[in-house]
Amino acid sequence: MWPKKHLTDLLGNEHPIIQAPMAGSTTVELVAAVCNAGGIGSMGYSETPTETIREDAEKIRKLTDKPFNLNFFAHDTPVSKPDVVESARERLKPFYSEVGLSEVPQDVTKPLLTFTEERLELLLDIKPPLVSFHFGLPESNAIDSLKEAGCRILCSATTTAEAIALERSGVDIVVAQGWEAGGHRGSLDVNHEDHGVGTMALVPQIVDAVNIPVVAAGGIADGRGVAAAFMLGACGVQMGTAFLSCPEANVSNVHLEAIRNARDDDTRLTKAFSGRPARARKNDYIESIAAHRLPLPDFPTMYTLSNPLKEASDDTLDFRFLLYGQAAALNREMPAAELVQTLVTEAQNLL
Amino acid sequence: MWPKKHLTDLLGNEHPIIQAPMAGSTTVELVAAVCNAGGIGSMGYSETPTETIREDAEKIRKLTDKPFNLNFFAHDTPVSKPDVVESARERLKPFYSEVGLSEVPQDVTKPLLTFTEERLELLLDIKPPLVSFHFGLPESNAIDSLKEAGCRILCSATTTAEAIALERSGVDIVVAQGWEAGGHRGSLDVNHEDHGVGTMALVPQIVDAVNIPVVAAGGIADGRGVAAAFMLGACGVQMGTAFLSCPEANVSNVHLEAIRNARDDDTRLTKAFSGRPARARKNDYIESIAAHRLPLPDFPTMYTLSNPLKEASDDTLDFRFLLYGQAAALNREMPAAELVQTLVTEAQNLL
Repeated sequence: MWPKKHLTDLLGNEHPIIQAPMAGSTTVELVAAVCNAGGIGSMGYSETPTETIREDAEKIRKLTDKPFNLNFFAHDTPVSKPDVVESARERLKPFYSEVGLSEVPQDVTKPLLTFTEERLELLLDIKPPLVSFHFGLPESNAIDSLKEAGCRILCSATTTAEAIALERSGVDIVVAQGWEAGGHRGSLDVNHEDHGVGTMALVPQIVDAVNIPVVAAGGIADGRGVAAAFMLGACGVQMGTAFLSCPEANVSNVHLEAIRNARDDDTRLTKAFSGRPARARKNDYIESIAAHRLPLPDFPTMYTLSNPLKEASDDTLDFRFLLYGQAAALNREMPAAELVQTLVTEAQNLL
Repeated sequence: MWPKKHLTDLLGNEHPIIQAPMAGSTTVELVAAVCNAGGIGSMGYSETPTETIREDAEKIRKLTDKPFNLNFFAHDTPVSKPDVVESARERLKPFYSEVGLSEVPQDVTKPLLTFTEERLELLLDIKPPLVSFHFGLPESNAIDSLKEAGCRILCSATTTAEAIALERSGVDIVVAQGWEAGGHRGSLDVNHEDHGVGTMALVPQIVDAVNIPVVAAGGIADGRGVAAAFMLGACGVQMGTAFLSCPEANVSNVHLEAIRNARDDDTRLTKAFSGRPARARKNDYIESIAAHRLPLPDFPTMYTLSNPLKEASDDTLDFRFLLYGQAAALNREMPAAELVQTLVTEAQNLL
C-alpha cells in the first residue's frame, strides 16, 4: 500500500502520516481522530500541568486503541540577561501604548517549561507509544529510560548534521523539518545562524546520512506533498498546518481566517513572540522587531513580554502569533479523519 | 516514459530536464551535451557581447540539432544613488585594505546589461527554440515578437503571484524557483521583501494557479528530486548546481572544491556581490555585509565594487561569489550526458 513501510512497521499503525504536535492547537479529539483514521496523532505540550497530560493520555486511550504521540520542548534553560530584558522592554513600550497598556512586565522569569524529571516520571508511568521532542533532546538517561519503557523517540532536525547527532543520541525516527514548516524551527542549537534548508534539499541529504527512518515535514499540504516526500526517500510525513483547518483543532477565528486567506509568502521566521525562531503570519509587530535586530530574552521568557500585547489586541492580525507554514493556502476544511483518508487516497493515486 | 508530457511536447525534446542557465558557468559544450542527451541545455548571458552570443548559437547548432535555450537577465535599469554608492564604498574600504588594494572604484556606472533592442534583434535573427528570462520580462512587444518568431518563452517565478503575472504576460512555461536554488533569486520586484518560499510549498501552489507548464527548480539534485517534482504537479525540472560538477561546465577550482565539501546549510542569500539577492557559499565578506544591512548599489552596479575584491583574492573562499544551491552536497562528478541519463534512469525507476 505504501512504497516504504519502515515507519508504519516501527509504529504499528496503518498510514505513514503524523499529525504534527502543535502546542495549544492540538486536542485529544484531534489526536484520536487521526489515530483512528490510521495516522499518528500528536499532542503538543509546552507549559501544560503534568496532571493535565495524564488526563489527556487517559482520554486519548478511551477514544482510540491506536498508537499516539506526546510531544515536549527540550530547550536549554533560559539565561537571565537583565540588559537584554531591559532593552526589549524599552523597545516594546510603544506597542504597549498602542494597545492601551501602561506597564511592560518587569519580571520575565517564567516557570521552567523544559522537559523535567517530573515529566519523565509521568511518561514512564503512562508509557505513550511515541514521545517526540523539539529543540533537541533531554538528557541521555531520560531517552534510555523512555526507550526501555517501550516508547519510540522522535525528534526534529533542521540540518543533516543535526539528524546525524540525533541518530547518535538514540532517536528512533528523525523528522526532517524543512524551511517551509510553520511554527518553531526545531534547531538544536538556537545560536547557530540558521538560513533555513528547504524540504526538497533537506530530506534526501538526511536520508543518505542516517540509518533510522526519516519523516519529511515542511510545505506538505496534500497528497502531492506526501507522494513527493516518498520520492525524496522519506518513509513518512509530518503535517501540522493542514490539520489546523480541521474542526477538532483548537484554532481561533483570527487564525482560521488568516489561513483561509493565506498566500505562499505571507509568513516569515520571527523571534518576536517566544524568543526562538518560528514561522508565523507576518504583521507590523513582527516586522518592527525584525527591523531592529535587538537581542531578545531567551525562549520561553520572551512570551512574558509579548503575551500582554497578544491578549490586548482585538480580532485583527496585529500582535497575533499565528503559526502556519508556506503551503497553508492549500488547506482544506474537513474533519481530521476525512483529511487523513483524503491524503491517503491522493498520495496512493500518485504513487 | 514520463507521467506528464506537457513540457516535452511543447519543446519537442525527449526528457523534461532543463540544465539551468548559469551565466559565466555554462559553455556551448555543456549545452550541446545536455541537448544531445535529450534534455534542454541553456546558455546564460549577462554582459556577453551580442556577437559572441551569435557565435555561440552557431556553435551549439553545429554540435546538436536539438532544441536549446538562451537566457537573459531582464532587470530594471539601475538607478544611480550617489549616497548609497558612497556609503558602500566606505564600508568596503577595510576589505580593500585586507586584500592589498588601495582604491575603491569611484565610478560604478556599468554598461547596461539588461535586455536591449540589440539583443532582441539578434534573437529574432538566430531564433533559438527557447528564450528564458530572469528577474522578470522585457517589454511586451519583445515577448510578442519572439513568440511570432517561433521562440518559446520561459521565465522564473519565486511566488504564486509572480507566476500568475508571468502567465498573463504571455510566458509559455514558468519556472517555479524555490528558496533552495543556487544563484540569483528571480523575483520580479527586487524591492518586495522576500522571505523565500521553499520548492515543496511553491510548486503545487503555482501548478494550481496557472494553466501553462510548470517547471520545478531549487534543491533538486538527483532522480529523487526529479520524481518528487512530478509528484508535486510539475511537468519538468530545472537543475543548475548539479551540472556545475560536469567537466563541460566553466567552474573554478575553488568553486568545484567548495561544492565537493558542501553542506546543506553552508549557503545564504546575499546582495554583497551583485546588488540582488543570490544564494552563494557563505564567507566573512558576505556575513559582514549582511550584518550591516547597508543599502547597496542596484544590480548590477554593485559588481563594480565587489569585482576587484574577488580578483585580488587568492584561492580561498574569501571574497568569492560561489553560487550553488542547498543540495550541492548530492552532486556527482560526471560528463553532462551521463548526468542526464543518470537522472532519467533514477527518476524513472522511482516513477
